[in-house]
Amino acid sequence: MNNDIELLLHPRSIAIIGASAKKGKIGNAIMRNLRESPAKVFPINPHEKTIEGFKCYRSIDEINQKTDVAVIVLPAEKTLEEAKKVADEHIPFLIISSAGFSETGESGRKIENEIAAYTKNRGTRVLGPNTLGVCSPLSGIDTMIIPKERSPRPDKGNLGIISQSGSVQVSLLERAAAMRVGVSYAVGLGNRSDVSELDILRFFENDPDTEVIAMYLESFLDGRNFLELARRISIKKPIIAIKAGSTEAGSRAASSHTGALSKGSDALVEGAFRQAGVIRAHDDEELIDYAMALMMMPAAKGNRVAYVGSAGGIGVMASDYIEGSKIEPPLEMAKLSDQTRHSLHEFLFGYSSIENPVDLTASSTPALYDGSVKRVLGDSAVDLLILSIDMQPPMMDDQVFDHITSWVTIGKPIVGTSTGGEVALRAISKMQSLGIPSYPSLSRCMKAAKALYQRGMILHKIKQDSSKGPQE
Amino acid sequence: MNNDIELLLHPRSIAIIGASAKKGKIGNAIMRNLRESPAKVFPINPHEKTIEGFKCYRSIDEINQKTDVAVIVLPAEKTLEEAKKVADEHIPFLIISSAGFSETGESGRKIENEIAAYTKNRGTRVLGPNTLGVCSPLSGIDTMIIPKERSPRPDKGNLGIISQSGSVQVSLLERAAAMRVGVSYAVGLGNRSDVSELDILRFFENDPDTEVIAMYLESFLDGRNFLELARRISIKKPIIAIKAGSTEAGSRAASSHTGALSKGSDALVEGAFRQAGVIRAHDDEELIDYAMALMMMPAAKGNRVAYVGSAGGIGVMASDYIEGSKIEPPLEMAKLSDQTRHSLHEFLFGYSSIENPVDLTASSTPALYDGSVKRVLGDSAVDLLILSIDMQPPMMDDQVFDHITSWVTIGKPIVGTSTGGEVALRAISKMQSLGIPSYPSLSRCMKAAKALYQRGMILHKIKQDSSKGPQE
Repeated sequence: MNNDIELLLHPRSIAIIGASAKKGKIGNAIMRNLRESPAKVFPINPHEKTIEGFKCYRSIDEINQKTDVAVIVLPAEKTLEEAKKVADEHIPFLIISSAGFSETGESGRKIENEIAAYTKNRGTRVLGPNTLGVCSPLSGIDTMIIPKERSPRPDKGNLGIISQSGSVQVSLLERAAAMRVGVSYAVGLGNRSDVSELDILRFFENDPDTEVIAMYLESFLDGRNFLELARRISIKKPIIAIKAGSTEAGSRAASSHTGALSKGSDALVEGAFRQAGVIRAHDDEELIDYAMALMMMPAAKGNRVAYVGSAGGIGVMASDYIEGSKIEPPLEMAKLSDQTRHSLHEFLFGYSSIENPVDLTASSTPALYDGSVKRVLGDSAVDLLILSIDMQPPMMDDQVFDHITSWVTIGKPIVGTSTGGEVALRAISKMQSLGIPSYPSLSRCMKAAKALYQRGMILHKIKQDSSKGPQE
Repeated sequence: MNNDIELLLHPRSIAIIGASAKKGKIGNAIMRNLRESPAKVFPINPHEKTIEGFKCYRSIDEINQKTDVAVIVLPAEKTLEEAKKVADEHIPFLIISSAGFSETGESGRKIENEIAAYTKNRGTRVLGPNTLGVCSPLSGIDTMIIPKERSPRPDKGNLGIISQSGSVQVSLLERAAAMRVGVSYAVGLGNRSDVSELDILRFFENDPDTEVIAMYLESFLDGRNFLELARRISIKKPIIAIKAGSTEAGSRAASSHTGALSKGSDALVEGAFRQAGVIRAHDDEELIDYAMALMMMPAAKGNRVAYVGSAGGIGVMASDYIEGSKIEPPLEMAKLSDQTRHSLHEFLFGYSSIENPVDLTASSTPALYDGSVKRVLGDSAVDLLILSIDMQPPMMDDQVFDHITSWVTIGKPIVGTSTGGEVALRAISKMQSLGIPSYPSLSRCMKAAKALYQRGMILHKIKQDSSKGPQE
């Protein structure tokens, strides 16, 4: 069996069975999404000469060129026949987008199994069925049947995505695009008749382009293997995962969604993830939020958090979040050293609070931000900084952003936010583009900070374990 | 003593002590913010003839016209003298924007007390010091020293805001503007040397323009009276409140922020709010999110939630949120009646999940949304609908929005969301403008749904209490 997932994600040639010239058809959407692909594209459709500028073939066996990946976008009932042809041609990978298999019941499961057996015997590996397949800003491959105009794709970058759900895959890619988080590969697993999260994880493990891994799963194909693999990978790269269907209600929903048998209570997932060094997220927003923080910032070496901002009340609520959250692991407000407090006092002319949270008040200026942030980051009692750059005070202007690079290079994790509505969104976008992962609400900001601390704890535990030497 | 808060919020004339003609000065910002005010505006500045088109006066005693409200925007050290002049003129209300009083320590507290005593004796009521004062899209009064260009204001509407923090007041107004939540009055309390949350609450109680009340407090001036008043008002109007400084860390931060002595543990606040029928929020985002839901939708009569959407995985995560959340009160997934399920099955051609969550899949159309939403809302086993209008499926288009009014008029609460990034934001904005409070993430959507159920429980409890008759 071919295990070279590289070929699936970087095909040199790709055939689309069910390609269509008609705008609005999914067989046309996939062709349009592949227009700029560096791979050769072979549309298969007996009734057309060309589709979207590509020469059309009547059938997969008429291509007579090496084909790395075939995609079937036909209705379920036509899939078995075409899948057999693909396997007969010994094409290494087959992506089946069609739905209507094991997720719909017994008869669908039977066809799915038949396809799996037939392809396996002939060395063709199957992704899906019921999957959007692969979208890789890095390799330029995009087999998703949702047009780019309807669903913006992210730029290339270092986040690898694995999703058991097509709609979550779409949402993660759109959120990554909106937050300018770059993606290496996004792989939809669908019903996992063959290729599973384990295959993709193993590829990501050694892929230099993938630095952080984000996953959406409704069930584990092989929980033990997953946890073992995750534990190994998390030494090198952060893994963030949603395990959906972790309640009774969610589990019922998952079963009619991907046919997943989602067992295991919420607490079980929690414990297993902690053991395996996986950072848990609960929805698509959290997943991309955490990924962004982990891609842009080093892990926090401890849980002592400082806050600098000019909006006093926001600082008070931040303090409540830091010490009041019931979510593990607990953070705490850093106790600034006497030296830092003294230095801040001299610097701020006694105007402002020199305790943590540091409140620059409505008198804040870019220079006051710069001096305060540097003093706070320089304090060894601070593990992470929550930075709220608030643009409303009269003496604030865009010069504040000129300092950001010098703050980031200090090397301690910073998570950003800004007070307000539209005005805040602009500041957040600026901070973000200069290297600080930034969020438009206190709660998202705090959860991202917590993810950075969780990652720090995971790395610490790995270090401890390895200093004990290999276990018997 | 003048208790007519109406005059503070709807002054016929307003004097600005410290008005400035110099752009960038806070004394100029306030003048610019008052340019379109229906009240007469009297800038006080001995060195100018006119400011922003208004005739300037040398001193408050030279105006010789009835003045309802005076605002001092001078440094703290000049405030006592001017406050005395205002009181000598028997002006009913004085707003002191200046900071540097009790929040900075003992010497500041002394001056604050001196002002309070002097003004009280002469019948002038004081808002502040250390307050942004009043911003009312309804009356056109805006004494905030932050220019509108830096901090967009909301349209007029029915949300009344009370904030002990200026920066939170600004953030709430900007968030309301961004989410198109209309505001009647926003009142900053500052150090509460005189006018307190109790005065403003009593005004809001009988104000026909204020339908929902949102509060940010760091401490209660008089907890017993607050809870009694809140209990009475919440029979008629929802109150949502943040009690910041409810942890040790937050309490310390609050003390150096507004000088508030914030006592009481988090659990105490939780219990007191429940008793008084106050819905608790934890940050500025939640406060406006809940206010929007409560302004646009009726309360939920029970906790049985249905979900309709086309993104299967999002439906699974929604189910987890509904049944898995540890936050009281618990919601549950509605069990659709046999009749509804049968009818959905016929309608959806067996394509989709006819259990709750209802998953319209990538085959969704505007008509499928319409038929499904109406069937689900018509089921007496459903108290509230979470509706995700997902625009990515190929047959979806803007016609889906044409149905919204007919769904809203059914009269059951609906909370909206949409899957994705930018594409979702546009759908959310559409839903919102047609009457469904809508949020760009599952967690915000779920928390807003919970606020609607909390309001339902509060109303239920009131009904029960009143049917028992007055208590001895």
